[in-house]
Amino acid sequence: MDQPAATRPLRSPGGFPVVGIIGGGQLARMCAGPAAELGLTLAVLAEAHDASAAQVVRCAPVGDHTDVESVLEFAADCDVVTFDHEHVPPDVLAALVEAGARLHPSPEALVFAQDKVAMRVRLGEIGIPCPRWRAVKSAEEAEDFGAEVGWPLIAKAPRGGYDGKGVLVADSPADLAGWLANGPVLLEEQVEFHRELAVLLARSPSGQAATWPVVETVQTEGICTEVIAPAPGLDAGLAARATEAGLRIAGELGVTGVLAVELFDVDGERFVVNELAMRPHNSGHWSMDGAVTGQFEQHLRAVLDLPLGSPRTREPVTVMANILGGEHEELYSAYRHVMARDPAVKVHLYGKGVRPGRKIGHVNVSGTDAAELAERAQHAADYIRGVITE
Amino acid sequence: MDQPAATRPLRSPGGFPVVGIIGGGQLARMCAGPAAELGLTLAVLAEAHDASAAQVVRCAPVGDHTDVESVLEFAADCDVVTFDHEHVPPDVLAALVEAGARLHPSPEALVFAQDKVAMRVRLGEIGIPCPRWRAVKSAEEAEDFGAEVGWPLIAKAPRGGYDGKGVLVADSPADLAGWLANGPVLLEEQVEFHRELAVLLARSPSGQAATWPVVETVQTEGICTEVIAPAPGLDAGLAARATEAGLRIAGELGVTGVLAVELFDVDGERFVVNELAMRPHNSGHWSMDGAVTGQFEQHLRAVLDLPLGSPRTREPVTVMANILGGEHEELYSAYRHVMARDPAVKVHLYGKGVRPGRKIGHVNVSGTDAAELAERAQHAADYIRGVITE
Repeated sequence: MDQPAATRPLRSPGGFPVVGIIGGGQLARMCAGPAAELGLTLAVLAEAHDASAAQVVRCAPVGDHTDVESVLEFAADCDVVTFDHEHVPPDVLAALVEAGARLHPSPEALVFAQDKVAMRVRLGEIGIPCPRWRAVKSAEEAEDFGAEVGWPLIAKAPRGGYDGKGVLVADSPADLAGWLANGPVLLEEQVEFHRELAVLLARSPSGQAATWPVVETVQTEGICTEVIAPAPGLDAGLAARATEAGLRIAGELGVTGVLAVELFDVDGERFVVNELAMRPHNSGHWSMDGAVTGQFEQHLRAVLDLPLGSPRTREPVTVMANILGGEHEELYSAYRHVMARDPAVKVHLYGKGVRPGRKIGHVNVSGTDAAELAERAQHAADYIRGVITE
Repeated sequence: MDQPAATRPLRSPGGFPVVGIIGGGQLARMCAGPAAELGLTLAVLAEAHDASAAQVVRCAPVGDHTDVESVLEFAADCDVVTFDHEHVPPDVLAALVEAGARLHPSPEALVFAQDKVAMRVRLGEIGIPCPRWRAVKSAEEAEDFGAEVGWPLIAKAPRGGYDGKGVLVADSPADLAGWLANGPVLLEEQVEFHRELAVLLARSPSGQAATWPVVETVQTEGICTEVIAPAPGLDAGLAARATEAGLRIAGELGVTGVLAVELFDVDGERFVVNELAMRPHNSGHWSMDGAVTGQFEQHLRAVLDLPLGSPRTREPVTVMANILGGEHEELYSAYRHVMARDPAVKVHLYGKGVRPGRKIGHVNVSGTDAAELAERAQHAADYIRGVITE
């Protein structure tokens, strides 16, 4: 019944550019609305004809982001190329640059989001606080580091992890045996922290940057489940230092587009950087409804080197709750209850099939009282995923 | 280089419906973002492969809205069918109903937006204040009506008009000769008014309705050029009576989806109804950025009989300025200046080729001071259309 999307972009009149996104996940999907609003043409190199973003853009050729030919053919029609994820291999990125594609972020910047060891080295060089860490190749090296900072340790695959995948809490070197067989492992001390924060900003090739307020993120089993913007009760000094660190990272690493810096708030005064992402990020979904300029519009403006939009909040507080796949595959019938109960809840679903724990959508609610907004957001998210029935 | 959009919709997993829109103009285009956010599939029956909406949706078959076969084929894939414009002929609507299509608004309601004489008759029956009017078939009848209410008169083609087209200021029966040769003409007294207002609301098949604040609209040569939401300094009693009239019209006429009621504010206390539109409307574009639920999301919710979203304003005032086609066809290069000058301006362009006076986009700016916001919105709109260069 259904038909494939077009594989070549249709240029709009008026001199508007084509923005290509490699990867057809929900981040690419959520760029579609802002792109249409700004008159831009979006093209998506999708994993499948029914990928999340491919459902909602006209031009969505199916192609493998690790295949040089597919990626080059896609990029040839685009004025600028950006990413839904960090998984495009370095040789493919190099071929794109060689072919004259304008990539944002550049491969030189993106490597620090792709390779966690490279990221730790670079952040150390520019004086950004990080957990103590070591890249180890053997059980002996792991033993040494554990003796130094204490077990358990956080073990991370240097490449390819996301949403808690590629991360392990190791109680002893024995837990790392399988991983070490595949190459070096990044070990980090387990930081005791008060809560988790994120700094979200955008930076353009011209060097303009704009930061949203620092947010609090709540993780459940390694997956972000809730974001409160701005972070309630955040010390102004900590907020300023964290924001400054984000801007310094963006500038020093040459980031273009949206940058998310995930932090541990150690004790309400100090922070260490946990992770980086160089693309729109779960910690910024609140901005779609809660800020004058949402992260998806801002990412498009940044990669096109347009002046950035105001990141000002529209209401005092916005809470985002992720909708994770639950037990039932049918979702639409939940709308009646959720929308009737709370006419102000903003529902965002991604067109993805349900698998337990998979991110399939989120809701935003804006207002003044963070606790009340969180209750409303969680209720809507829980009802849609089916873990509550009233 | 470019390729046609798909002609059959791709159903998303999760039980989400397909909403079909007949007509591929900017109103259909602006439904695309909200549809994607809600996980809905949008299909558009477009006038051309590069129509405004066809640029930004996956499924946009090209077809003539006056051709029964094309429209039936399109509707067969849709769970509900709605409209970008009022121009689908009654026989095509009847064939759709006969084939089992769910149409919102229904043909029975839509006739009052299609036929201005039918609208005047019906509004009179339900006690809504209107200008004095008469449907005339001859110069003699026009002469009689003119003698009664005074020349000049406003002459309107009963069907097919929009944006000032199909409307004429007649100084004498001689001005109507050409029109009367084509059939009856609606004549209305020329109302002296203080300003123009619009009531915008949505109503669902279940009968739920939600109204946005009454707005002030500014028309230039019959085309809406500016909207201030809410209307500044509006008498609370007038606002309440106008809103009540809008709700009464929606209920009595059985409107489903968004209804716009254009009014003349006669003297700050009394109003008369000028026009009706049963679809998202220019007077509601401000709501995309200025309200918790914008008119395009609300229209989708209404035609699907979902509970309606909150129409609450996000900021005290939002001003919309239309961008009308100017002298130059290249638009994108204006972004650099407009976005740098005012990072909070929200730009919406429709992917339409430039023709002088054609609606090609709009801007929204939100804040507290209507006059200041209007200056900012007009500056951005004027710069993009090219009538100012700094």
